[in-house]
Amino acid sequence: MVNTYQLEVVESTNKKDKPLHDQVPFGTIFTDHMFTLEYEEGKGWHEPKIVPYGPITLDPAAMIFHYGQTVFEGMKAYRTEDGRVLLFRPEKNFERLNLSSERLSIPPVDEKAMLEYLTELIKLEKNWVPATQGTSLYIRPFIISTEANLAVAPAKAYKLMIILSPVGSYFTGGLTPVIIHVEDQFTRAVKGGTGMAKTAGNYSSGYQAQANAKKAGNADVLWLDGIEKKYIEEVGSMNIFFKINGEIVTPALNGSILNGITRTSIIELLGSWGISVAQRKVSVNEIYEAYEAGQLEEVFGTGTAAVISPVGELNWQGKKMVVNNHQIGELSQKLYDTITGIQTGKVEDPLGWTVEVK
Amino acid sequence: MVNTYQLEVVESTNKKDKPLHDQVPFGTIFTDHMFTLEYEEGKGWHEPKIVPYGPITLDPAAMIFHYGQTVFEGMKAYRTEDGRVLLFRPEKNFERLNLSSERLSIPPVDEKAMLEYLTELIKLEKNWVPATQGTSLYIRPFIISTEANLAVAPAKAYKLMIILSPVGSYFTGGLTPVIIHVEDQFTRAVKGGTGMAKTAGNYSSGYQAQANAKKAGNADVLWLDGIEKKYIEEVGSMNIFFKINGEIVTPALNGSILNGITRTSIIELLGSWGISVAQRKVSVNEIYEAYEAGQLEEVFGTGTAAVISPVGELNWQGKKMVVNNHQIGELSQKLYDTITGIQTGKVEDPLGWTVEVK
Repeated sequence: MVNTYQLEVVESTNKKDKPLHDQVPFGTIFTDHMFTLEYEEGKGWHEPKIVPYGPITLDPAAMIFHYGQTVFEGMKAYRTEDGRVLLFRPEKNFERLNLSSERLSIPPVDEKAMLEYLTELIKLEKNWVPATQGTSLYIRPFIISTEANLAVAPAKAYKLMIILSPVGSYFTGGLTPVIIHVEDQFTRAVKGGTGMAKTAGNYSSGYQAQANAKKAGNADVLWLDGIEKKYIEEVGSMNIFFKINGEIVTPALNGSILNGITRTSIIELLGSWGISVAQRKVSVNEIYEAYEAGQLEEVFGTGTAAVISPVGELNWQGKKMVVNNHQIGELSQKLYDTITGIQTGKVEDPLGWTVEVK
Repeated sequence: MVNTYQLEVVESTNKKDKPLHDQVPFGTIFTDHMFTLEYEEGKGWHEPKIVPYGPITLDPAAMIFHYGQTVFEGMKAYRTEDGRVLLFRPEKNFERLNLSSERLSIPPVDEKAMLEYLTELIKLEKNWVPATQGTSLYIRPFIISTEANLAVAPAKAYKLMIILSPVGSYFTGGLTPVIIHVEDQFTRAVKGGTGMAKTAGNYSSGYQAQANAKKAGNADVLWLDGIEKKYIEEVGSMNIFFKINGEIVTPALNGSILNGITRTSIIELLGSWGISVAQRKVSVNEIYEAYEAGQLEEVFGTGTAAVISPVGELNWQGKKMVVNNHQIGELSQKLYDTITGIQTGKVEDPLGWTVEVK
């Protein structure tokens, strides 16, 4: 089903200056090279190439511009203190890429080959992986439908690319607890939709709600289920966890929530510490009741971009739930330190999550 | 809010051969020129240009590729028997474009200026408007977010384009009644989502359901509401109408259904004939009961691409509803003849819908 060919590497002759990594805004600076792979019906995925980072050329009728058939991934490469470069569970990202592709009727890629291509790209761009605390090289694989055709149907041609961007902290305030608005008007996703896929349309559909939330002083929105507007799903770019009276709870994967790799890692890490996570339906009412009873001990988001983001306040229908007096919770801090420690090689990696780029 | 500048026209020096219009597949052949307009924060929409049709160049980090912030429209130019070119309610399309843009946090365009730009483009491409029965020049305005930035937020730069494609009938069988699958697993849209906007993500999210339906011999799917999977919303690329025991019924606009311009025109046209259309919630159960009682007299879809598409059969949970013995209904035929007659100047235009391109 998937054809792989010899990787062609065209090295850039015009290398860019590297930014001061702790001053870089998220996702606006890109490295010297990018990876590209083409798909044509009958030929499969072919022509893997590493080429100088630069613009791409598409027909205005390319289906990506009209019907949104596209998927993406987000992952990171980290610099260790002794100068090595580590990836964090990268095989999970290519596995999820294929799951997203299935939902969007995009042909699957060879996950193993993708990991090899990514490794070659990172090797070439090793000097772009920043070393300052909290920084990393953000990796964005994505697939776009390129066939020029206005018929509403899956494309016969695609382009997969990987671009790299050195990044600082996702939230400019660093590990500062954020204020989150519980959204009960707009909907992100619903059963039978595309909520579990990393596809473009899921993101821009949230901009209106996010703008309203930001105007009211919130950093992001917490989405509720599309059917009853009652059950908690996820934050803009993160999954969410609650510590209620000592118990850790997170919404169960239900088809409309993204299966976050940081989410899974948190659950597995807590498990290795003997702490189980209840994955179940969590209603916003339950959270409010826990808050009123003084049992809402910690709330935190998890995601590749932010890793762990403590939530200091939830706003829901005019009611304010202040969490842990706007301070980072003990568990949130420990999880952050451990996950980022594993990612950067500072602490042991007992679960074998990191892959060194040699 | 919107800046308009002098339109610049760069004429193509390398004109293409025009296709035999009755043999053209939908949306794969494009004319010699296209219209482009740029947006930058602080500068507004600017630089209106008509240039030779050709590829566009974008940064791989352009937000359209990652977060799907994009909207589009679909409209047509028709050739009359005496060689004139007519547009059908084009102002409605630019009005809806701005409504879609609002939902996707895209800055609005000047609707009047857009109509002028479109008119200039169509004038230049007049010879591309086909004359054969059932053919037209399909017009696709669309806006894409072009800023190179991986942050999940509205872009600061956009490109609006209009491309033109001579087309034959949308359904290759012409005005033949189609078989439609009633989809009760996958969801197109839900309250609070983007269902009423013409935005890319709404379309590719339906491909899996459409592929399943096609495998089972159906031409397209009829979507149910995302909450109860009970109420009828719309067909893949059309709104839907039912004639039940003499009464015309169509689902009410509820925020998750596209506000179709053909839909509105059908309602207004029927009104001018003294026939009222009930716009209300319509459950699939109601349709099935009407079918069993022998009262499901006609079913037809309406949309720019297909104009009127009679439905000959609905398949729902293994139950088959054959409509009017797979024949075109009397009302469907009369509406088709009247609307296409108005569009092509063959019959009087009492409601003033057509705009001649002079």
